[in-house]
Amino acid sequence: MPDEVRDPRSRMVYSAVQLVRERGVTATGIRDVVEHASAPRGSFQHYFPGGKDQLVSEAVLWAGDFAAQSVTGYADTARRPTPSGLFAHMVKQWKRELTARDFQRGCPVMATAADLVAADTAVTEPLRTAMAHWQDAVTGELTRMGVPARRSRRLATVMLSTLEGAIMLARIQRNVRPLSTVVADLAPLLDDAVVR
Amino acid sequence: MPDEVRDPRSRMVYSAVQLVRERGVTATGIRDVVEHASAPRGSFQHYFPGGKDQLVSEAVLWAGDFAAQSVTGYADTARRPTPSGLFAHMVKQWKRELTARDFQRGCPVMATAADLVAADTAVTEPLRTAMAHWQDAVTGELTRMGVPARRSRRLATVMLSTLEGAIMLARIQRNVRPLSTVVADLAPLLDDAVVR
Repeated sequence: MPDEVRDPRSRMVYSAVQLVRERGVTATGIRDVVEHASAPRGSFQHYFPGGKDQLVSEAVLWAGDFAAQSVTGYADTARRPTPSGLFAHMVKQWKRELTARDFQRGCPVMATAADLVAADTAVTEPLRTAMAHWQDAVTGELTRMGVPARRSRRLATVMLSTLEGAIMLARIQRNVRPLSTVVADLAPLLDDAVVR
Repeated sequence: MPDEVRDPRSRMVYSAVQLVRERGVTATGIRDVVEHASAPRGSFQHYFPGGKDQLVSEAVLWAGDFAAQSVTGYADTARRPTPSGLFAHMVKQWKRELTARDFQRGCPVMATAADLVAADTAVTEPLRTAMAHWQDAVTGELTRMGVPARRSRRLATVMLSTLEGAIMLARIQRNVRPLSTVVADLAPLLDDAVVR
């Protein structure tokens, strides 16, 4: 977490993201979050009157924003932005993260969806918003690179689907190879979509 | 569940699969499984001395076998088997299932991975075996269609990753469109891999 984020409320949202990524929503207790965030006991109810649903909703939205920001940051770092370069950029962050933490933490959106999306909870809509935010960011970047708008949206679906599944495979296999494979094998498909 | 599977032990494994798909592993209690399976109370310990880990392990292996069988069944039904046809076949089953059950049940492998894969439990190895079994089936079919062996393995990774992620997106959006998108957009990539 960036050092400047020091207030207990933000720390609790951040801690919720990390714990959910590791063990899922159901196994993440309020107490665990308060403790992980080093937040004052009893402050949870004050900051999250909507309870765990509110906390998890904010965690998911935080994750969607984070992912979207990373996507829009790619064009600033790349000399010649390409669709395959964007996908490689997204995947590279995951490879680094999975390797650094021994595959402990997966995607918070996947973890939340797996545990909660069947039930009609207050988290469903934030989950949808988080994914849409992330997907819109990818779509926008692809369009800027010259991929027609409708195709950009479709390829964003392909990229996010493939990334999510490959993260899951990598964690199961405790190996980043699935992530390397999807980057290399999707590259021609992605780059061929640019209309020059 | 096929009608012939009537013994309580098999029913419990099957029930575990269905409950895990809906709510995740952590929220699936032994009692829920026994009740869902209409199994005699107290029979759980008899059939699963290894407890919940054993049950979930068998559930995941059952799911891997089921998925692998569906993959190998494709060639029997297709007049002219193609890689894109195989992928469409795999996706079609999911679309039917998600639509029929209002997106309630996701993939049991994803649900188990999201909840358990970070911890070093007895389920990790069965999870790996289940995925390997499924992936081997896809690899084998692609090879039979004329895709070189090494490429077949890579494309199987792409197909399973993309399918898993698209199932997640479809459930979040309560719409099968992501599944239709990935089938259509991956088709050229998959079919171009056939060496004629």
